[in-house]
Amino acid sequence: MSVEIERKFLVTDERWKTMGQGVLLRQGYLSSSPERIVRVRIEGEGAMLTIKGRTVGATRSEWEYPIPLEDAQAFLDNLCERPIIEKYRYRIPYQGLTWEVDEFLGENSGLVVAEVELESEDQAFAKPAWIGQEVTHDARYYNANLLRHPYVRW
Amino acid sequence: MSVEIERKFLVTDERWKTMGQGVLLRQGYLSSSPERIVRVRIEGEGAMLTIKGRTVGATRSEWEYPIPLEDAQAFLDNLCERPIIEKYRYRIPYQGLTWEVDEFLGENSGLVVAEVELESEDQAFAKPAWIGQEVTHDARYYNANLLRHPYVRW
Repeated sequence: MSVEIERKFLVTDERWKTMGQGVLLRQGYLSSSPERIVRVRIEGEGAMLTIKGRTVGATRSEWEYPIPLEDAQAFLDNLCERPIIEKYRYRIPYQGLTWEVDEFLGENSGLVVAEVELESEDQAFAKPAWIGQEVTHDARYYNANLLRHPYVRW
Repeated sequence: MSVEIERKFLVTDERWKTMGQGVLLRQGYLSSSPERIVRVRIEGEGAMLTIKGRTVGATRSEWEYPIPLEDAQAFLDNLCERPIIEKYRYRIPYQGLTWEVDEFLGENSGLVVAEVELESEDQAFAKPAWIGQEVTHDARYYNANLLRHPYVRW
């Protein structure tokens, strides 16, 4: 089990796009309940099953299990809740931390969010110039909620 | 992925109880939706995460991943839907097949079901004398449904 402390922000422009290479993530949910998320994710040739407990503040317990790619493919194709979420993820180092910028596709096209993982909730950190408003506590931006209320319908 | 073909029966008396040793199973659900079951089970010192697709006839796709005991404990204690299902399982060999007899505890006390796993849906098999009515297609007996409608409330 690990504890994930993340803060999430909107971006103000596209400067981040030139700072890293985007990789395609395909992910779906076997459970999208905020009490017990079960997420399937394929990134390149790797696949992961991730279980998450409820978020308290910016903190969430998380358990990750690597699974065979063909299992993940079967879950995304046949079992997961619809729709599947697809996004390009850019990993951008900035002053000792890594910012993950997710550019969503499909029904969430137009949405871009940037996340930074911290060691503690009160950790100070520097923000790149293209980081905008914080949305850590705005449930609309939870990936699991983007299934039911995709960005194009906001 | 494996395909699980199982038929489920009630029992007519307690003769099975002298034919094997019961082991305690504790199991809970991260998803109890019939479309995508995610089950956590502890048996002895072993723990398993099992994902199941929808049942068609007596057949269901199933994927199993061994997980650390402490992870399973955390899921059962903190994440899974309530209540947790506890049952003693007796494995009883009979004419080349193994019958699994589950004696439920807690809110499902009084319920005993016997399952046999087959190679094909039309496989012929011999039934022990203590096997009663078939309930394979009766959704009330699905373990995931015993959460919401436990036997004591039938």
